[in-house]
Amino acid sequence: MLSKNQVSEIRALHQKKQRELKRQFIAEGVKTILELLTHYPQLISGLYGTDEFADQHAKLLKANSIPFTSIRPSELERISLLEKPNQVFAVCNYLNEPNLKFNFESHFSLYLDEIRDPGNLGTLLRLADWYGISKLFCSEGTCEFYNPKVIQASMGAFLRVEVVYTSLTRLISENNITTVYGALLNGANLYREKLQPGLIVIGNEANGISSENLSLVNRPITIPAAPGNKTESLNAAMAAGIICSEFFRQLQ
Amino acid sequence: MLSKNQVSEIRALHQKKQRELKRQFIAEGVKTILELLTHYPQLISGLYGTDEFADQHAKLLKANSIPFTSIRPSELERISLLEKPNQVFAVCNYLNEPNLKFNFESHFSLYLDEIRDPGNLGTLLRLADWYGISKLFCSEGTCEFYNPKVIQASMGAFLRVEVVYTSLTRLISENNITTVYGALLNGANLYREKLQPGLIVIGNEANGISSENLSLVNRPITIPAAPGNKTESLNAAMAAGIICSEFFRQLQ
Repeated sequence: MLSKNQVSEIRALHQKKQRELKRQFIAEGVKTILELLTHYPQLISGLYGTDEFADQHAKLLKANSIPFTSIRPSELERISLLEKPNQVFAVCNYLNEPNLKFNFESHFSLYLDEIRDPGNLGTLLRLADWYGISKLFCSEGTCEFYNPKVIQASMGAFLRVEVVYTSLTRLISENNITTVYGALLNGANLYREKLQPGLIVIGNEANGISSENLSLVNRPITIPAAPGNKTESLNAAMAAGIICSEFFRQLQ
Repeated sequence: MLSKNQVSEIRALHQKKQRELKRQFIAEGVKTILELLTHYPQLISGLYGTDEFADQHAKLLKANSIPFTSIRPSELERISLLEKPNQVFAVCNYLNEPNLKFNFESHFSLYLDEIRDPGNLGTLLRLADWYGISKLFCSEGTCEFYNPKVIQASMGAFLRVEVVYTSLTRLISENNITTVYGALLNGANLYREKLQPGLIVIGNEANGISSENLSLVNRPITIPAAPGNKTESLNAAMAAGIICSEFFRQLQ
């Protein structure tokens, strides 16, 4: 059972400003919560779920001394951001802030230049995790990592892939990166290029790579389209996925 | 200026049932509408936009004798489904229904088995268009093609890629398909397999390929992950994109 006060405190975390102030975020759904409980219980500040969930996972809850509040489905609906809330809801503390260091000489990673859609960022975290990219880099204007839709779309990958917000200039200079790929419409054929470890810049959904960052790209690459293709571009996360797949294929 | 009656008639099309009844759907945004005006003006049953839009595209509107209604931004907000409505809104008639025929011996295409997210379907239309896949196939339970979020996410590709809803059994028998790939977690390594033209089955976001359809797959394939990967799967559209990229690369 939740008090009015508790409900409004939790609902405040629906907003970015409040999340940043309290350094807390929301995670929802059985799958994500089980991942938190199993591998990162120390992040959980409060767990709110149905009796059904508590019964099914009693051992896990007890083992980690998790502060669990039993709530009704109607209460879950009041605090949830999902259309169909799913048994359990957590308030978590921010993760430790990762540093800029990354070994670009033996691995590849992405720099997201103003990716705005939280679904895209979440999907990209899942992709990075799949291909063993331990750290993703983003421009300051890229969608907030702790946006509940990012957490949701990442299906737990937000716990395994670190995200660093920084300028491209700073990232390049801190790591002495020499190979900067950029996903463009007029670059070298992705499939024919001999790809090397390095950084790959992915542009904004509507406007592509900013002109400032474009000047730092020294290896423009393009995903070839079928002859006569009329689609101007692929979805940004999709393009990043296809590019990472080809890097992984060539470098594995 | 819109009458109350017009507003409610247009808003009725926000619902699937009404779209199917009237055989009409909604398209929004300058980019999509310009594509409609340029290549498929006959589909437009009514166009509603700001004076700014009408002025900028007067020639195009006149050339096609498009029934244009000038509306204020506040009116656009009332009929739009977008968070930030963008100048123009169209009511369109359904496209012609495509048939089942497709040459699987020289091309590859996808069968979407219960893809539920409209963003995923729209993104997949864009992908299909990019790689020259002229027809996509879907199970009956896959997200509705005319869902406004599909139209929006497809960025105009819904006009160039045909979508057919059918059972996998019927699709296979009508086209005598012999090679049926399936995106699975325990199939052959996508990058090492010698890929051939054929059909690729992509499963539902949460549950994968249904057991009934799984029995029709004779070439299970898997996108290899990095060693030690803990992500259970990729986003369904992302997985389809990576697979199509590899088919295109090998077959081009």
